[in-house]
Amino acid sequence: MSVKYPPGVKPRKTVEKPCEKKQKKIIASAANRGMVFEADINETNSFYIEKGLALVYKRPTPINVVHVDYSHGAKITHAYFEAQSTTDYNGVYKGKYLDFEAKSSKSRTSFPLNNIAKQQVEHLRRVMKQGGIAFFLINMSSLNETYLLDAKYVCDFYEEHPRKSIPISDIREKGHLVKEGYRPRYDYLPIVDEFFLK
Amino acid sequence: MSVKYPPGVKPRKTVEKPCEKKQKKIIASAANRGMVFEADINETNSFYIEKGLALVYKRPTPINVVHVDYSHGAKITHAYFEAQSTTDYNGVYKGKYLDFEAKSSKSRTSFPLNNIAKQQVEHLRRVMKQGGIAFFLINMSSLNETYLLDAKYVCDFYEEHPRKSIPISDIREKGHLVKEGYRPRYDYLPIVDEFFLK
Repeated sequence: MSVKYPPGVKPRKTVEKPCEKKQKKIIASAANRGMVFEADINETNSFYIEKGLALVYKRPTPINVVHVDYSHGAKITHAYFEAQSTTDYNGVYKGKYLDFEAKSSKSRTSFPLNNIAKQQVEHLRRVMKQGGIAFFLINMSSLNETYLLDAKYVCDFYEEHPRKSIPISDIREKGHLVKEGYRPRYDYLPIVDEFFLK
Repeated sequence: MSVKYPPGVKPRKTVEKPCEKKQKKIIASAANRGMVFEADINETNSFYIEKGLALVYKRPTPINVVHVDYSHGAKITHAYFEAQSTTDYNGVYKGKYLDFEAKSSKSRTSFPLNNIAKQQVEHLRRVMKQGGIAFFLINMSSLNETYLLDAKYVCDFYEEHPRKSIPISDIREKGHLVKEGYRPRYDYLPIVDEFFLK
């Protein structure tokens, strides 16, 4: 489980062994790539809200608060990030409930499913059972390609091969290429119209 | 704006003047009343999820993280609670998007609108514009009565009389009494069926 750092929060420099350094660099680069894609999706959603097209928000990262110092106006002095038990995004579009997870990978050949948590798969299954629209936005950063994949397809794949990766050929075949632009950055609503609302 | 304390977090004792003590006691009692109602709504939602009837979650309280100490495994050492810019609850029911705010008041005569933030009214307007189901659950704790009020009615009232209170006679006339029980604690879905989905 990777820790998600809120925007603006960066790891502090500490004394470490060279082997740890390399490992941390890999994690930090994965976190940064995820953060760039997340920022782009947030910008897309802001654009949709501004234009009155949809109302989609990022859920705040849950934080477990251990101690609050009330002598300095409710300053939290001890707390930990918790894992998101749902997906990162949900909202409303044309009256329908929308729920999705946005993930980025730098692999050129496949999307590794270890990017997805079991409880997210369970959550998306529940969303689909309630008739909500559920999907993944998968950004293949090295290929400059982003796909919308139906949550049903990803959840089925996950349950059949939990430790595997979805090959890029399958992503291209089963997914829908999201148009990339300036504003909105990733225009995913036309795909929702075509594949969920028709 | 009142600070929301996460479950388990209690104000620390500090040296204070007698007049401050009384003020703090009032705030603490309002916070406790709100927390009891919130816990009951969370329990109701857990019951709905368990039975596969609906999928409604409480949004995590947003926290502004100022500093994280990575020498102790990502321990947050400096952060502040932020005001919720949306409502507390959202989810999916029969494919439809559901969004609501749950509030408690001990008044016997009216519900004071200063319990509601301007950005919550704006958020609920946007939800309605997108065709989502939007409402308030208002618990009049001294009367042991809880009402579901259409967000349109509350938002209109708020914009016409932002500093006023909704009289209990209006709440009883315009609202729908929520059945209280053991499980679910506040059975609000039958009202959603009758007044939003028919």
